[in-house]
Amino acid sequence: MEFKQELKKYQQIVDKELEKYIIKADCPEKQLYQAMEYSVMAGGKRLRPILVIATYQLFKETIEECMPYAVAIEMVHNSSLIHDDLPGIDNDDFRHGKPTNHKQFNEATAILAGDALQNKPYEIISQDLVNTKLDEMPKKVRVLQEFAQAIQKMLAGQYVDTQKEGKDISAEELKYIHQNKTGAFLKLCVRIGAILAEAPEEQVQKLTNYAEKIGLAFQIKDDILSEEGNEKVLGKPVGNDKKLGKCTYVSQYGLKRAKEILYQTTKEAIKELKDYGEKAEFLRELALYIQNRNK
Amino acid sequence: MEFKQELKKYQQIVDKELEKYIIKADCPEKQLYQAMEYSVMAGGKRLRPILVIATYQLFKETIEECMPYAVAIEMVHNSSLIHDDLPGIDNDDFRHGKPTNHKQFNEATAILAGDALQNKPYEIISQDLVNTKLDEMPKKVRVLQEFAQAIQKMLAGQYVDTQKEGKDISAEELKYIHQNKTGAFLKLCVRIGAILAEAPEEQVQKLTNYAEKIGLAFQIKDDILSEEGNEKVLGKPVGNDKKLGKCTYVSQYGLKRAKEILYQTTKEAIKELKDYGEKAEFLRELALYIQNRNK
Repeated sequence: MEFKQELKKYQQIVDKELEKYIIKADCPEKQLYQAMEYSVMAGGKRLRPILVIATYQLFKETIEECMPYAVAIEMVHNSSLIHDDLPGIDNDDFRHGKPTNHKQFNEATAILAGDALQNKPYEIISQDLVNTKLDEMPKKVRVLQEFAQAIQKMLAGQYVDTQKEGKDISAEELKYIHQNKTGAFLKLCVRIGAILAEAPEEQVQKLTNYAEKIGLAFQIKDDILSEEGNEKVLGKPVGNDKKLGKCTYVSQYGLKRAKEILYQTTKEAIKELKDYGEKAEFLRELALYIQNRNK
Repeated sequence: MEFKQELKKYQQIVDKELEKYIIKADCPEKQLYQAMEYSVMAGGKRLRPILVIATYQLFKETIEECMPYAVAIEMVHNSSLIHDDLPGIDNDDFRHGKPTNHKQFNEATAILAGDALQNKPYEIISQDLVNTKLDEMPKKVRVLQEFAQAIQKMLAGQYVDTQKEGKDISAEELKYIHQNKTGAFLKLCVRIGAILAEAPEEQVQKLTNYAEKIGLAFQIKDDILSEEGNEKVLGKPVGNDKKLGKCTYVSQYGLKRAKEILYQTTKEAIKELKDYGEKAEFLRELALYIQNRNK
């Protein structure tokens, strides 16, 4: 199957699963669920849940086992986007070409929808644990722990990012921010896929290296797009990072050098997959997709 | 031991345990932990973790097993306070007589400190699960599930509350808000204590009834204090609920009837403890303390 088609197929699988958990029958807090749904179903790339599923599929044929974790990750990701967009943090009006959550609803709703999307995953995971046989519990508990730790890292990275805005920043600090804000969570995706599929530890590690590298590539590409992307394609204003004095790979290294680092990092990511043969084709293409995307 | 002394002893146990988890060594996100610590250690009543411990002690002698859950609950509680105080929700400047988190630090910090305090508990619980023997796993997983569900209810109640501000509200809606915003979480406390202590289901239920009633009493008393409390003692302005047109038991029933409901509810709560004899004395006193407190 051609990569774009396969990606779409994965996105549809994820969207269908997400809908199961987000849409709620009539209840007093119905609008809170509508606000959660608004952001979650706004058409993100689903990169994170797809990473969980595609990694899991390196080792297993069926995907049911990893689906609750795939959607849990996508929810937390959306939670962080909603909170990042708030006036108190990035103050963004648009995302995916639509008004941000607090613009569409109001600030109180966006704060609480973000909170609810950060917590809902634990409801989903605990439900899965309740249904898990005791002998499968240790791997699931390990996944739960890595999940909680990665979110804490993401928030730490996000925090340092907000506090450094408009200030001088060292290459080391920039690296810290990206490793935590974006990197930890992408690493989590492949680790969850691999651990649930009972991959040998050595392979969990190789896949972690892959994720670390595409995570870095993803962030560099994001910074490049924020600088020179197409506003209409991106669905958000371009040049805001510079205006806000935000520290990015572009502000740190310049556009040309940032692109060189991007290509080199993608190449290294693909190298980590060399043992997996044909089965890892999607993950290879995914690394190239991250490098070449225009939104 | 006299009740106030015993309460203080419990508070000290909780504070000591909280400090273990909150204070972090030097790291780039150190200030985020400082913001978390600022709110968590600002001197709350510790009612929730104390409920966990005191319920657990109805059945067991030592308390180590329930401590991670006690502090987890206190952290989430503080997370919700930090977010409730934000300009986008209640816009409060003071809590416990000190500037609220976003006033002391800034909005971005308060949003992320709240997020981190909502997630940190899952790091703590998952660490406990990693250390749990397989045969004790089912009860721990049940606790995790109830924990996640109660937080979701709390957020739903908080959401409906914010959306009803300044609007006409039915007695039913008011009940819904309190049952979810405050009640679900207090119920969770005694349920966690009882389930971890392996109490018979029938006793889990009786204690749940007790918690439901003190939860209702707590909310009514909060509303009464917001109307006629002492600003200096409370550490926050009085009369704000009325100014904001907030729906409360006082606005709904008037001060006199609200007090009658408070006394009746407390009496009913104490009745639920009649089987436990001397051992439940602290929980009885706690119900009276909630009824009679002035902050």
